[in-house]
Amino acid sequence: MPIRVTVWGEHRHEKKNPKIAEIYPDGMHTTIANHLKKSTDLKVSTATLDEPEHGLTEKKLASTDVLTWWGHIAHGDVKDEIVDRIHQRVLDGMGIIVLHSGHFSKIFRKLMGTTCNLKWREADEKEVLWVTRPGHPIVQGIDDHFIIPKEEMYGEFFDIPEPMETVLISSFAGGEVFRSGVTYTRGAGKIFYFRPGHESYPTYHNKSVLRVIENAVRWAAPAEGSKAITYGNRKLGWLDAK
Amino acid sequence: MPIRVTVWGEHRHEKKNPKIAEIYPDGMHTTIANHLKKSTDLKVSTATLDEPEHGLTEKKLASTDVLTWWGHIAHGDVKDEIVDRIHQRVLDGMGIIVLHSGHFSKIFRKLMGTTCNLKWREADEKEVLWVTRPGHPIVQGIDDHFIIPKEEMYGEFFDIPEPMETVLISSFAGGEVFRSGVTYTRGAGKIFYFRPGHESYPTYHNKSVLRVIENAVRWAAPAEGSKAITYGNRKLGWLDAK
Amino acid sequence: MPIRVTVWGEHRHEKKNPKIAEIYPDGMHTTIANHLKKSTDLKVSTATLDEPEHGLTEKKLASTDVLTWWGHIAHGDVKDEIVDRIHQRVLDGMGIIVLHSGHFSKIFRKLMGTTCNLKWREADEKEVLWVTRPGHPIVQGIDDHFIIPKEEMYGEFFDIPEPMETVLISSFAGGEVFRSGVTYTRGAGKIFYFRPGHESYPTYHNKSVLRVIENAVRWAAPAEGSKAITYGNRKLGWLDAK
Amino acid sequence: MPIRVTVWGEHRHEKKNPKIAEIYPDGMHTTIANHLKKSTDLKVSTATLDEPEHGLTEKKLASTDVLTWWGHIAHGDVKDEIVDRIHQRVLDGMGIIVLHSGHFSKIFRKLMGTTCNLKWREADEKEVLWVTRPGHPIVQGIDDHFIIPKEEMYGEFFDIPEPMETVLISSFAGGEVFRSGVTYTRGAGKIFYFRPGHESYPTYHNKSVLRVIENAVRWAAPAEGSKAITYGNRKLGWLDAK
Repeated sequence: MPIRVTVWGEHRHEKKNPKIAEIYPDGMHTTIANHLKKSTDLKVSTATLDEPEHGLTEKKLASTDVLTWWGHIAHGDVKDEIVDRIHQRVLDGMGIIVLHSGHFSKIFRKLMGTTCNLKWREADEKEVLWVTRPGHPIVQGIDDHFIIPKEEMYGEFFDIPEPMETVLISSFAGGEVFRSGVTYTRGAGKIFYFRPGHESYPTYHNKSVLRVIENAVRWAAPAEGSKAITYGNRKLGWLDAK
Repeated sequence: MPIRVTVWGEHRHEKKNPKIAEIYPDGMHTTIANHLKKSTDLKVSTATLDEPEHGLTEKKLASTDVLTWWGHIAHGDVKDEIVDRIHQRVLDGMGIIVLHSGHFSKIFRKLMGTTCNLKWREADEKEVLWVTRPGHPIVQGIDDHFIIPKEEMYGEFFDIPEPMETVLISSFAGGEVFRSGVTYTRGAGKIFYFRPGHESYPTYHNKSVLRVIENAVRWAAPAEGSKAITYGNRKLGWLDAK
Repeated sequence: MPIRVTVWGEHRHEKKNPKIAEIYPDGMHTTIANHLKKSTDLKVSTATLDEPEHGLTEKKLASTDVLTWWGHIAHGDVKDEIVDRIHQRVLDGMGIIVLHSGHFSKIFRKLMGTTCNLKWREADEKEVLWVTRPGHPIVQGIDDHFIIPKEEMYGEFFDIPEPMETVLISSFAGGEVFRSGVTYTRGAGKIFYFRPGHESYPTYHNKSVLRVIENAVRWAAPAEGSKAITYGNRKLGWLDAK
Repeated sequence: MPIRVTVWGEHRHEKKNPKIAEIYPDGMHTTIANHLKKSTDLKVSTATLDEPEHGLTEKKLASTDVLTWWGHIAHGDVKDEIVDRIHQRVLDGMGIIVLHSGHFSKIFRKLMGTTCNLKWREADEKEVLWVTRPGHPIVQGIDDHFIIPKEEMYGEFFDIPEPMETVLISSFAGGEVFRSGVTYTRGAGKIFYFRPGHESYPTYHNKSVLRVIENAVRWAAPAEGSKAITYGNRKLGWLDAK
């Protein structure tokens, strides 16, 4: 049974800024989705902010095993009701991959319980991403490091809870470091945050970046497909455990 | 310099229900505070839901090193604005001890990012709390286990993120188990959830329970007093790291 | 490509004690292996203490993706050289499932760095195992709890490092609790400790117990088959990262 | 009651190499100890490899609350018997601070259960250490980063178990990164690994480095002084928990 992936994109920069449209004519989400579509074990669709319900209806989410999320300038336009819906689906077992500036999205901050703040600088800097968990499924096919020639810098302190696993750590030409690939679980859902992907660089055309996203999708897929895990506030009679 | 503790109580059950008032004539928070006041290294005050701003003004929180929280029937009456204020103070370094039914409080759920759901039963059950981290500051002076003769049952699955440390696990007469003492950090703040304390039992008169709360207050106190840790979304110039 | 599983058994009790031989005529390892053999995605073999090199030659381990381990009265007979060999294979990516009294095996203690001590009692006690991570691959197909009618009791404090994930917690009729299903990683290898399985009970005929072992084998299998992850003490020249 | 610190040094480089002796005439351990002696809450002594029992007799360890460890060229000369003694004391509650090349010491590898391998290069490189846990006691008084002008490079992958907390991450001029300050617990003992301190640089004269070591000593001190935590393999009678 294929893993059903929904690639979500804010899709605003690409419509407003010709330079960004040149890199991603159909939006970053389409570039990512096109890569994933090459894998026969993945069934890929997309959704964007300006669709009704941001493209994430109850039905759509119920048939999504893994959601990827890129947002930046319009986090505030994402409706709380939809955020709550995504949140519940993650707890029920849907995987979520949060990309780059998605660190400040409502859904990521709700899942983390922290501000998700960080330091940043736009200076066309070289980023070196080092693997800190060789053998982890998310870095399958990746050597001990890979390089992105020009990216925005993100620097520590990154205000996230202590990760379950730190899979990648970046250094930047300016001397900063950043936990660039970190995993969590919340309820039955698996979460991966992956740093690279500033809109003004062709980062989502980079083979290693795409490979990490593809790996992460497989890693985050629920063990039992999209079946909701039902648990919760439940009053037990005396003999329930017998 | 003493640790400044604010013991927060919902203080509704005790005013409405004569049976509960008999156990806690001045409220659970007063019983807890009176115990803590015996320690000269603690400077203890209280605050309750029905005070202006729930007794948790900016000034009050700024001079609180550790907050303890008991709520149950009125979680919904706690204003979001005050919850956000507490949340920011925790990230800045204030410790927080969440007691019993506080598992469903807005502040605990915001810090955890999960539903904090659990199973429960009121049946005057014996609870045995086992130490799973001997030597941890929170169980100083506690033997390998202690018993509460009659309590409400809380059972797994408890929908919380994987704890940093699991310090206590309970069994109940009905056969259930529960992670009864768990630690987290969020930002610079330390968090301890401690299970016992249903309003209809004299649990906060139990010496072991009080000892754990007292220990947890010392454990959760920030390293540098109440000084706010300032960090955040910060744009760096190229040479900042040099 | 199937997962290559080696089911290792000490296989001494079954040869010496007629009562145990009655439950496991061909040894506990054979009972476990026979269950796993029903799955076409698993390629199953066995190995025992009294074979040359304990059945775990370099070649055998190199072609093992997941090793399961049951030992009890003869931990001391396992050669240090073989323990070191298993240890290196785990770091290189082989999964390992440690069962019951295997908590005191040389390999488990070497991986944990602690004594792995616990409390115990043999009294034909009912054990209730509660799922504390619904949706986790290891408890796929398991309800919120399952019961073993008669087992040896293991009680906390269990001297292990804080687990990556606590998947199952047991209660016993005597009131004790135990972290019965816990996960770790060391190097590229995944580790699962699973409590049940005292030799004098038919525990490895229990469907839920067998299901958890089967699930754990799939969970622990390396992402890239048995390919060794090569890393280590490596001197770098200046330009290696460029 | 002061914290009793024993600063352990291999003390071989300083006796053999005049250039190193120039930086540390009385040994690195003496330089570190002299700094700690300025704090009235610390009672400081030293021990070295070539003393009888490496200066770590049963009596000495029994009266040590926190041990700091620097070794490099003579890890193999440390007797297994003494390593086992230190290991047991850590499990019983003694804190341990492992410095720089101590990553390859017998005691650290025994506590970790992994190879503790890493990449390295000696090239007089600038190291920038970034705080990844603001507010943590170990980085009290440290700004968001500090710089060591010339140091040996240590690079990821560092083969350690996932830390409890990652407090500091370094970048190096060559582009590598390293988890430079990480915490663990084993049994009742707290463990801190701290990267800087190659023998050919005056690193242990650096104020920030000394401050981190001093902070870590206070953080690692047991809650109940040197009192051994007694637990272990214990057979329980039926009513023990009652």
